[in-house]
Amino acid sequence: MPQYLAPQKDYEFLLTEYLNLAQYADIFKFSAAAELVVPIVEAGAKFCEQELFPLHAVGDRQGCKLKDGVVNLPDGFVAAYKKYVEGGWSSITAEEEFGGQGLPEVLNMPMTEMVCSANLGFGLLPGLSHGAYHAISLHASDALKKIYLPKIASGEWSGVMCLTEPPAGTDLGLITTYATEDGADKYKIFGTKIFISCGEQDATENIIHLVLARLPNAPKGVKGISLFLVPKIIPETGERNALICSGLEEKMGLHASPTCVMNYDGATGWLIGEPHKGLKAMFTMMNSARLYVGVQGLGITELAYQNACHYAQERLQGRSLRGAVRPEKSADPITVHADIRYKLLTMRALAQGGRALALEMALKIDLAKDHADADIAEQADDFVQLLTPITKAFLTDSGFEAANLAMQVLGGYGYIREYGMEQLARDVRITQIYEGTNGIQALDLVGRKLPFGFGKYLRSFFHPVQEFLQDEAPEMQEFIKPLRKQFENLQKASLWLGKQSLSNPEDVTAAAGEYTKLFSLVVLGWIWARQAKIALARPEEEFYKQKLETARFVMNRMLPQGYGLLAGLTAGSNSIMKANF
Amino acid sequence: MPQYLAPQKDYEFLLTEYLNLAQYADIFKFSAAAELVVPIVEAGAKFCEQELFPLHAVGDRQGCKLKDGVVNLPDGFVAAYKKYVEGGWSSITAEEEFGGQGLPEVLNMPMTEMVCSANLGFGLLPGLSHGAYHAISLHASDALKKIYLPKIASGEWSGVMCLTEPPAGTDLGLITTYATEDGADKYKIFGTKIFISCGEQDATENIIHLVLARLPNAPKGVKGISLFLVPKIIPETGERNALICSGLEEKMGLHASPTCVMNYDGATGWLIGEPHKGLKAMFTMMNSARLYVGVQGLGITELAYQNACHYAQERLQGRSLRGAVRPEKSADPITVHADIRYKLLTMRALAQGGRALALEMALKIDLAKDHADADIAEQADDFVQLLTPITKAFLTDSGFEAANLAMQVLGGYGYIREYGMEQLARDVRITQIYEGTNGIQALDLVGRKLPFGFGKYLRSFFHPVQEFLQDEAPEMQEFIKPLRKQFENLQKASLWLGKQSLSNPEDVTAAAGEYTKLFSLVVLGWIWARQAKIALARPEEEFYKQKLETARFVMNRMLPQGYGLLAGLTAGSNSIMKANF
Repeated sequence: MPQYLAPQKDYEFLLTEYLNLAQYADIFKFSAAAELVVPIVEAGAKFCEQELFPLHAVGDRQGCKLKDGVVNLPDGFVAAYKKYVEGGWSSITAEEEFGGQGLPEVLNMPMTEMVCSANLGFGLLPGLSHGAYHAISLHASDALKKIYLPKIASGEWSGVMCLTEPPAGTDLGLITTYATEDGADKYKIFGTKIFISCGEQDATENIIHLVLARLPNAPKGVKGISLFLVPKIIPETGERNALICSGLEEKMGLHASPTCVMNYDGATGWLIGEPHKGLKAMFTMMNSARLYVGVQGLGITELAYQNACHYAQERLQGRSLRGAVRPEKSADPITVHADIRYKLLTMRALAQGGRALALEMALKIDLAKDHADADIAEQADDFVQLLTPITKAFLTDSGFEAANLAMQVLGGYGYIREYGMEQLARDVRITQIYEGTNGIQALDLVGRKLPFGFGKYLRSFFHPVQEFLQDEAPEMQEFIKPLRKQFENLQKASLWLGKQSLSNPEDVTAAAGEYTKLFSLVVLGWIWARQAKIALARPEEEFYKQKLETARFVMNRMLPQGYGLLAGLTAGSNSIMKANF
Repeated sequence: MPQYLAPQKDYEFLLTEYLNLAQYADIFKFSAAAELVVPIVEAGAKFCEQELFPLHAVGDRQGCKLKDGVVNLPDGFVAAYKKYVEGGWSSITAEEEFGGQGLPEVLNMPMTEMVCSANLGFGLLPGLSHGAYHAISLHASDALKKIYLPKIASGEWSGVMCLTEPPAGTDLGLITTYATEDGADKYKIFGTKIFISCGEQDATENIIHLVLARLPNAPKGVKGISLFLVPKIIPETGERNALICSGLEEKMGLHASPTCVMNYDGATGWLIGEPHKGLKAMFTMMNSARLYVGVQGLGITELAYQNACHYAQERLQGRSLRGAVRPEKSADPITVHADIRYKLLTMRALAQGGRALALEMALKIDLAKDHADADIAEQADDFVQLLTPITKAFLTDSGFEAANLAMQVLGGYGYIREYGMEQLARDVRITQIYEGTNGIQALDLVGRKLPFGFGKYLRSFFHPVQEFLQDEAPEMQEFIKPLRKQFENLQKASLWLGKQSLSNPEDVTAAAGEYTKLFSLVVLGWIWARQAKIALARPEEEFYKQKLETARFVMNRMLPQGYGLLAGLTAGSNSIMKANF
């Protein structure tokens, strides 16, 4: 097996990255535990490299097995999970009163990214638990919290989300799973859920299902959905609950993660939050999950970049147009060719830009939760609300793009299984679909986030960008100018959407995809311009030289796509809505 | 298994398509056998539907098996191949003197497309033979032609291309396979070739390998490569030749087609064409293969569109923004949503536009070969030279895009194996890589095709477009204007490339990818504007109404991408070439 797949070989780079990113967004300074970033990245990288990455291809080849309701993860996964929880990785952000380490999300981000690079299929199990923990923490009763949170924090138990049913995917109003009362505070749950990631597995003692279902006489549609906590094993009695995994899906990739059909046949459950308001509680989990899915895309982007870069440096083919750079060899490394460099720089810009975005989102989540100044906390929350759909869609699109670019860089070898790049494409492909397709993210952005509070969310991003664009330093103008152009295009597009929403809402929905791409480009440009500003102050260091190179590439060759996006999206929806199928 | 995959259910539509396309490009009129198009489409569709399509998923699941040098195709493939050749499908374009039907390429195109839709893995075997036939026909001695062509035409024997070696992919100058003389006109071939599609299989009696190798004392690099005909069984003696398949690659997809490692251990071969001029002969085969690979992308685009459209019409989720269109149901079909319509229209535009391009290419190949007027023949050849890399890159990129759009339309089901869309993405992905990656196609376009004869090839496309843009009919202006804008952008880009090629050739290679995309957009716009012109004359017919809808979508929502491409590619290569890796 080729040695190209070695996700953490650059963990020193990653450490520098995280420390660099801290400079431009006050990341880590915010936390009293800032000095933890170095040990977290170092220990995390070691764990990912030694324990998770060796199982990366194993998980893909072997997949999960279902027999009599029992799901076996691929060889080695259960042992790796035990080590993961023994290392304390599951409890970083959990509250101290429930046995967690009480650390901020920003400090969780480096390990989350590295796990996604090293073994995406493995990562789903702790990733989903992380979201379930916070949904229970925010919405469940104290009694439920006391029973469940310590065990989820410790990793002994896991948590999963159970939304989808065969006729109800995006449209959750159509779900038919229902609950009947069973004594004072308990319910019996009946129904079938599909596409339940890690709904059943053999790594944890218990699995806590957060299930959307209807109470008796619930209103139709999304206003009649409640959220229930349904454990596989009932803690009070130690009894097995009436739920079972009746099928596993065969998928394109991510074979290490079981995708379950779950049957609830009168399973005992407890209500979380208020009756009929289950979607609100579920969206707490969903927003956390959407950011996490974005980070899955980021993990694959980084891995694809590292591998493609390594391959390109070794592969000799053709000569530089400037004359042979390795005349003693039969050919030059393909890094001499503009086409290959273009692809590598695209991946690098997406990986490092995506990392900065993910970390900034984590920081804002921390600020929103804990900052003493209510205004700062509120603005941070506005930013998170606005940029959650963009982070999810942009980082997962980037992950798939990077995996495919890496395949192209490897040429024929990119299509061959043993070189590993095709697995990245197959694994990451689902991230553009689950937790709301990227089309749904786009609709969330234009339909909910933009109009909210007459642009309140939007201002949390527009204002800092406008402020940044005031920078008159001559050496910054090569970054400021291209960013300003696309920011103006984004403003035009936003105004156009606002206007059309009054007269022809389908103009807005028809523009959603391109608008999200344009917005993402501006976010990327803003991130890279800020990195350039830091880098300009440290011209001697190779790390910052590379930052400047990548920033210039982003400005010159990526941001111009904004012109086409603006022209396309403002062309209106007539040609789309009038067509017959 | 869901019934969505049914590629030829729309073969009546396909027939109308081909007859419609005939109007705007004199297709079929050129041929005395024009009346054959109806029976070819009808019989071909039936064959694809009944014989090839049922093996589509079987081939993916089962793959090929290698044991002791023998490769078994998946169950049913050998029998299907026998029926294919019995039906005369292998001999359509072969010359009558060698037992072929002597029909033009345009008449071969409908069946080629349908085979690629129904079973891409199956299609490679006859597809490669088609290219091998023409390489032998054009470059081999009469003696070799007499022995080999009738058997390849009849389909009893197959032909394959053997170029790549582990260190020599794009850079064929690095190949080390060599030939030693063995009597008057024979050679012994020694070496190892990889990525040889159908290099070994059990469907044909004999397999004719066209192998690139070096003669003794050959010059280094590409000027020392010769082409050899190396049969698996030597016809004169019936002996097994000294070549063997020593391995099969495990791939992302296209499992029905064996990708072989081939060892030539003193295998007897005959020289095709002149010594050291093997690449020229191979490029005959390669150009034919590149067009064919484009059609593979087209076949998948059409299949993805049909399936996504069918699914979207059946899937009920959410409500139209205009109020329920199916109030009696729990939800409306997702075809009411702008985002879904956008995706379906993109697929439709790429499928029908790609078909028109493929057919026009076939027509020009026929004209170049057979037209009595030497000027017309030459212009047709210029057009083929120019548009071969565009057809290959654009149609294969479209195939992958359409497969991925179909996955998005199906949502979670798109990622599940039994729904079939993920197989399309895995199968078609290789088409962007093999026969020259799409990056190499782009370099072929900017490096060879553009500068050739001071723009001679370019004029074969620019002149007809300029003529078309003269159309002053008021009802045509909604098509003429957007096309003109992007054509002007393409002219600007072409001039810029010409200028930069003198001062900084890396500006040209760094722009190649975006330039190829811009060129493809203009081709697409030109094709759709011409279809619109025909459609405007027949406003009553549903077929032509849909043509107008799609043409409008292309103009409004696809062509604007050209602005971003022009801005990006003319930004120069500095930020690309100065970066460090």
